[in-house]
Amino acid sequence: MAGEIEARLKALDIVLPDAKPALGSYVPFLHLNGLLFVSGQLPLVEGKVAVAGQLGEDVDLSEGQEAARLCALNILAQAKSALGDLDGLVQLLRLNGFVNAAPGFDDHPKVINGASDLLVEILGGKGIHTRIAVGCASLPLNAAVEIDAMFAVD
Amino acid sequence: MAGEIEARLKALDIVLPDAKPALGSYVPFLHLNGLLFVSGQLPLVEGKVAVAGQLGEDVDLSEGQEAARLCALNILAQAKSALGDLDGLVQLLRLNGFVNAAPGFDDHPKVINGASDLLVEILGGKGIHTRIAVGCASLPLNAAVEIDAMFAVD
Amino acid sequence: MAGEIEARLKALDIVLPDAKPALGSYVPFLHLNGLLFVSGQLPLVEGKVAVAGQLGEDVDLSEGQEAARLCALNILAQAKSALGDLDGLVQLLRLNGFVNAAPGFDDHPKVINGASDLLVEILGGKGIHTRIAVGCASLPLNAAVEIDAMFAVD
Repeated sequence: MAGEIEARLKALDIVLPDAKPALGSYVPFLHLNGLLFVSGQLPLVEGKVAVAGQLGEDVDLSEGQEAARLCALNILAQAKSALGDLDGLVQLLRLNGFVNAAPGFDDHPKVINGASDLLVEILGGKGIHTRIAVGCASLPLNAAVEIDAMFAVD
Repeated sequence: MAGEIEARLKALDIVLPDAKPALGSYVPFLHLNGLLFVSGQLPLVEGKVAVAGQLGEDVDLSEGQEAARLCALNILAQAKSALGDLDGLVQLLRLNGFVNAAPGFDDHPKVINGASDLLVEILGGKGIHTRIAVGCASLPLNAAVEIDAMFAVD
Repeated sequence: MAGEIEARLKALDIVLPDAKPALGSYVPFLHLNGLLFVSGQLPLVEGKVAVAGQLGEDVDLSEGQEAARLCALNILAQAKSALGDLDGLVQLLRLNGFVNAAPGFDDHPKVINGASDLLVEILGGKGIHTRIAVGCASLPLNAAVEIDAMFAVD
């Protein structure tokens, strides 16, 4: 239904951020043959990393989940920028979740749930996805989380 | 040939484990437009991580290979759960192999061979795949290996 | 235009290396249904890792960029080996960039630009891609960078 996802965003009182330009010589999204690829998104707010540092060191679980949530909002912002609106999203196929984490940290799935839960809340059945969640020794701009996505689209 | 892969499993005396539920708010597999995505699988046996720790620290090469082998069995279990049987698998396209490893460890390919070798043994030509193998500072539940997969399916 | 990319390589005075065999029990590329998957490529020159070590430790930014550039050349070598020539490349869809980096390193995007810039220079619009760039605690053969790719092909 046209506007269904926008209506859900409004009901949830969520305003998508502006789609951020890429941090390097690539593009933030690419749409071809029914697939939409979204480049790795950081927890940027107004162009700055809002949650920096490592899980298991100086970032706690709820901060990590907020970082993942911000990555998810930036993913949706890119998808909207790619398609004009969010009606063309058919299915979120995959999230790859990278958690900036100290050795020994083992709660990556709970961190990335911050993104997964939000995307299912906003997209409903179209937001149910496969996923990886792994730990990185470092991430760009010392962000706590980086997440990329692949969607099936109309 | 219907039942060919099941017959090979039997000949190899391999019993697939039950497909595990996802560890977070996502799904273990997703099947759309001829592609089957399988979420990152851990070396779980009866719901518990059978090989925990880091390569180059407290997990040796043969234990790491066994961890990768268990990930591969769980990938096949998810594929069977997705498709009903394994006859619909056309081609394993990609494995992404993440090895929980100490800095300086450099034998990731041999670790992930534990999964690659088994999948070729079971699936034959349909199991020949592309791959990455990289080192993670940490993984969910302190698992020694995490592997995800993408298949082409009927 | 047939031979366009080869002509650009010549104008840039770039000779593609030979496609390297896989480092384990997998294949370096796989071509199915209009998609070309290239396995993770290392900065190999004549079969040896040309840039080893960690960013933020014993590898500086320009060395890291050179490592990424070498990975990109090896990706193109695999694509040519897969297709016979480079004319069948329709679009580079995705690069996954893994940087061997010390904790606290935060310049991954600049490192992977070494690959992204070169691919756009060689492939033009067909080389504009989505990307991730993340930090790994370790990589195979202690390589400074590993990059894999997915292309849309004719």
